[in-house]
Amino acid sequence: MTIQEKIKLLRSRMRASNIQAYLVNGSDPHMSEYVPARWQSRQFASGFTGSYGWMAVTLDKAALWTDSRYFLQAKEQLKNTGIAMMKARESEALTLEQWITTELDQGDTVGFDGSCYSLAEAEAFESKFLKKNILINSDIDLLDEIWSNRPPLPASKAFLHTLEWAGISRTQKIELLHSEMKKADADLMVLTALDDIGWTFNIRGADVECNPVVLSFALITEKGAKLFIDKSKFETYALSELEKDGIELLPYKSFYGELQSIRGQAVVIDPDRTNFHIKNILESENQIVRQLSSASLFKSRKNDAELAGMKKAQIADGLALLDFQLWLEEKLGKETITEYDVAMKLEAFRAKQRGYVGTSFFPIVGYLDHGAIVHFRVTDEIANELNPEGILLFDSGGQYQYGTTDITRTISLGPVTYKMKRDFTQVLKGMINLTRIKFPKGTIGCHLDILARAALWNDNKNYGHGTGHGVGAFMNVHEGPQSIRPDFNNQPLKPGHILSNEPGIYRTGEYGIRTENMIHVVEDIENEFGRFYKFETLTKFPIDTRLVDTTLLTGEEINWINEYHKDVLSTLSSFTNPAQLQLLKRLTMPL
Amino acid sequence: MTIQEKIKLLRSRMRASNIQAYLVNGSDPHMSEYVPARWQSRQFASGFTGSYGWMAVTLDKAALWTDSRYFLQAKEQLKNTGIAMMKARESEALTLEQWITTELDQGDTVGFDGSCYSLAEAEAFESKFLKKNILINSDIDLLDEIWSNRPPLPASKAFLHTLEWAGISRTQKIELLHSEMKKADADLMVLTALDDIGWTFNIRGADVECNPVVLSFALITEKGAKLFIDKSKFETYALSELEKDGIELLPYKSFYGELQSIRGQAVVIDPDRTNFHIKNILESENQIVRQLSSASLFKSRKNDAELAGMKKAQIADGLALLDFQLWLEEKLGKETITEYDVAMKLEAFRAKQRGYVGTSFFPIVGYLDHGAIVHFRVTDEIANELNPEGILLFDSGGQYQYGTTDITRTISLGPVTYKMKRDFTQVLKGMINLTRIKFPKGTIGCHLDILARAALWNDNKNYGHGTGHGVGAFMNVHEGPQSIRPDFNNQPLKPGHILSNEPGIYRTGEYGIRTENMIHVVEDIENEFGRFYKFETLTKFPIDTRLVDTTLLTGEEINWINEYHKDVLSTLSSFTNPAQLQLLKRLTMPL
Repeated sequence: MTIQEKIKLLRSRMRASNIQAYLVNGSDPHMSEYVPARWQSRQFASGFTGSYGWMAVTLDKAALWTDSRYFLQAKEQLKNTGIAMMKARESEALTLEQWITTELDQGDTVGFDGSCYSLAEAEAFESKFLKKNILINSDIDLLDEIWSNRPPLPASKAFLHTLEWAGISRTQKIELLHSEMKKADADLMVLTALDDIGWTFNIRGADVECNPVVLSFALITEKGAKLFIDKSKFETYALSELEKDGIELLPYKSFYGELQSIRGQAVVIDPDRTNFHIKNILESENQIVRQLSSASLFKSRKNDAELAGMKKAQIADGLALLDFQLWLEEKLGKETITEYDVAMKLEAFRAKQRGYVGTSFFPIVGYLDHGAIVHFRVTDEIANELNPEGILLFDSGGQYQYGTTDITRTISLGPVTYKMKRDFTQVLKGMINLTRIKFPKGTIGCHLDILARAALWNDNKNYGHGTGHGVGAFMNVHEGPQSIRPDFNNQPLKPGHILSNEPGIYRTGEYGIRTENMIHVVEDIENEFGRFYKFETLTKFPIDTRLVDTTLLTGEEINWINEYHKDVLSTLSSFTNPAQLQLLKRLTMPL
Repeated sequence: MTIQEKIKLLRSRMRASNIQAYLVNGSDPHMSEYVPARWQSRQFASGFTGSYGWMAVTLDKAALWTDSRYFLQAKEQLKNTGIAMMKARESEALTLEQWITTELDQGDTVGFDGSCYSLAEAEAFESKFLKKNILINSDIDLLDEIWSNRPPLPASKAFLHTLEWAGISRTQKIELLHSEMKKADADLMVLTALDDIGWTFNIRGADVECNPVVLSFALITEKGAKLFIDKSKFETYALSELEKDGIELLPYKSFYGELQSIRGQAVVIDPDRTNFHIKNILESENQIVRQLSSASLFKSRKNDAELAGMKKAQIADGLALLDFQLWLEEKLGKETITEYDVAMKLEAFRAKQRGYVGTSFFPIVGYLDHGAIVHFRVTDEIANELNPEGILLFDSGGQYQYGTTDITRTISLGPVTYKMKRDFTQVLKGMINLTRIKFPKGTIGCHLDILARAALWNDNKNYGHGTGHGVGAFMNVHEGPQSIRPDFNNQPLKPGHILSNEPGIYRTGEYGIRTENMIHVVEDIENEFGRFYKFETLTKFPIDTRLVDTTLLTGEEINWINEYHKDVLSTLSSFTNPAQLQLLKRLTMPL
């Protein structure tokens, strides 16, 4: 079926249901960052394969909004589909909501599958439509009716996350959630984000690419917990453990039906992590208590066992990257190596480490112009070939049974320009200055973000992405609620929070530079001025000092680099083979 | 009448009006920072003279909330009044709203004079009360009935602000507001903040202490403007100028009556700067459009004439402070000098400058333990005596016909401790680092705030106030909407914004340090990374280098100090007398 045929079929269904505009976003019912094939509805309906887009179809027009990363790609992929490409996230451009209110008449209806929209986003456009007397039908999945080979629900195997690395049992975690429910005067808590559920029940799986999660819903009831999940995912042993802990196991598909039977309860939901359909089912007969997911909040503060696992994962990652660099130095200039080979090798060397489960995100490997594309996703077809000159950026990470990693390094492949060194050094200054700050309790990420930028700003440079995201413990590589970015986020940084620290600079058509360590918040001291926290660095891999212009660094910054390298050397050297050790010693030579 | 008698009378009025709780806050109808005597109702009803407090009286209890600055004073002043002192702004303490909902029953009524509460604050507690079925009567001023000698409306003379220093005529400003009304699809704009009105109509006066404003309301209509003001404040010439510019002059007291006659209009009001009573009058028959005051937004970005005036005021201020320091050096250790004398002399030396109008705020002069009290207000009775040792903090400013100043310096009076020098130098590093930053368009104050704190934070120190506030041009010394503080404020910094830059450190019982310059935002460059702004320093007075520990400074920081002093010397030396020049040369010697 061509895209045009699909849209024609969709329009006939729209007419039959009295829908004048139908929306397709391509999210899943769990608001996952990576969407399982079953819910890749935007790609099915438009052919566009980018990671960000909103589509709207009226009875005579169709349009798809995406952001500047994808303008070229979308124009190409939407050719001859009858779908117009629209610019999202550009201040002067027409928004989807404006387009709908222009195209539709009063009394018309906009349809969409509310189970694939978060409550917060659906309510945002609902209010705009209602103001113009445009109605909403959010309980309708018109694509499902025409999607003949729709992929099934993900059906990967699942397993229990051991207490050794979880640190807290599922019964203790459910008790923690109970106490939060009590504080909110609530009878019931809905969990739908797969990482929240994975954390709460100490379960892991592979239902979503890169994220070790299991397709499921959960209800925390006043006394216990119900987990909606396909039992066949688990071994018998795991099922009996869950049941022994008092978890009631119910089929995944019975979740919405179960919600319909709930009456007269105060139900806690997180508006950003719960789909609109769930609220619509619950709200008429129950009281909805909206608050940030307690599971997310607990999950964000790593306990000692989780921290130990995360540190172990850094050692595995460091050793894998040493292997990678040994390979690169041996082959570069002798054999053909592309960005794609680099991505493959990064995974292959990680896979040699004990407890490796998979990649924690799609690796970004950028040489020359590709380095300047912030979210560049390399494929064999488009990969640049590496030469023994200039700089290579690689951003990759692993999922290990004990922890999750995310590291970016930019390394010299041979002769480099002074501009590259200057850029590299200013980015590094930012990374160091953010790492070294001490800060009072109550500090939020947007207070600290500038520390990673000031050296660049003062040279009239900047980067267009955030500086730091939370990282899960053998869980999603991007997790909240804490962050370090210019955007206001009222979640204070707290001991146990793990964050990335990744300033960069991107010169379109030339190259990109990013240096990323993982850091975590620890207690510093308390005195008459209050309680102070600081960061400790988790990542254990050298920074390429060949790219550093020491004249741009303060003595304290040079000390920091030398101390960091001393620590990397002493930590990794207990685990290295002779070749790794030789390289490590060279890479950690003091400045 | 004693406080107890007043409260007894108030309660009899409450019973007569079926009011179970009456609230008194002590604001005025214009949400002024400094409140004219007529509206100092909290002081009248409680005897408490602090600048921050909320009072609530029920039929059998009375309580007053204030913050930690005033706990001791409030306890003393509320003795034997029957009013309990309550802690405000402390996380664990009972709030006024909680207290009211505990003390009152469902169906009871809370009364207050809505004309002295901003729309935003009244609505915040209204919603809390309504949730508990407690009613609101906000159109009742019970104190007025028992306030026999209530001070009259302020009746100072007013005058026109010349175009030379205003830069833009009142007719042009009204046109600017008209264009904003058009954008908001509005027919009418209400202006009630006295500085917004003063800016719009280019009028100045002395109805509020320190603020050169005139008691007035204003309506910007579709074609013109109505100014509600006491005509007798103006000379005939000024009246005819206003009328020539098409301004309709109406009595101040006719404002609310005029509002009652408005029907079917879309009316723009600023919820933070408009009193609750105004909204209550307008809302049933009109559409209310809430938005940040356009006058505030225009006012915050100084034009060339205003900037020229502000720079001229800095020169006047610098010369006055040279005179002050000459006087201090001559008298210290020979005559008795107190903090109070310092405050008087600061004003006296400013008063010698041409165009001086008055002080721009109550000067803060703190020696020894008084230096650590952030908002210390010195009086003759409590003033510390100065000795030729330690450090003196003074924060003061002037209103000149051409501009407004605000400067803090901390100077050495003789031998100082190393702790003082270390603290002083870290505060100075913060002031310099904020001044030197370049930043992209769109940056907001809370992004930059940490630059003034990082040196302190890294030594486990901090200060408990914001870093920067807007400053008016021969207008209020504190103005918005821009600010530099940790609190989120979504107003980006823009060229023409003037701000204070005033980090500090306060050691209770020992001393306080603050260094404050005024800075303003100017264009830097535009390149592939965007458009950049930077700060230019306005203040022209040396920083006491005797208190600087250069080993704590970077080369760039030392350069900044030397360049700053070179500029101060070259700017002021064209205006100095020989004694001033000799001192100036000594104070600006390079480090």
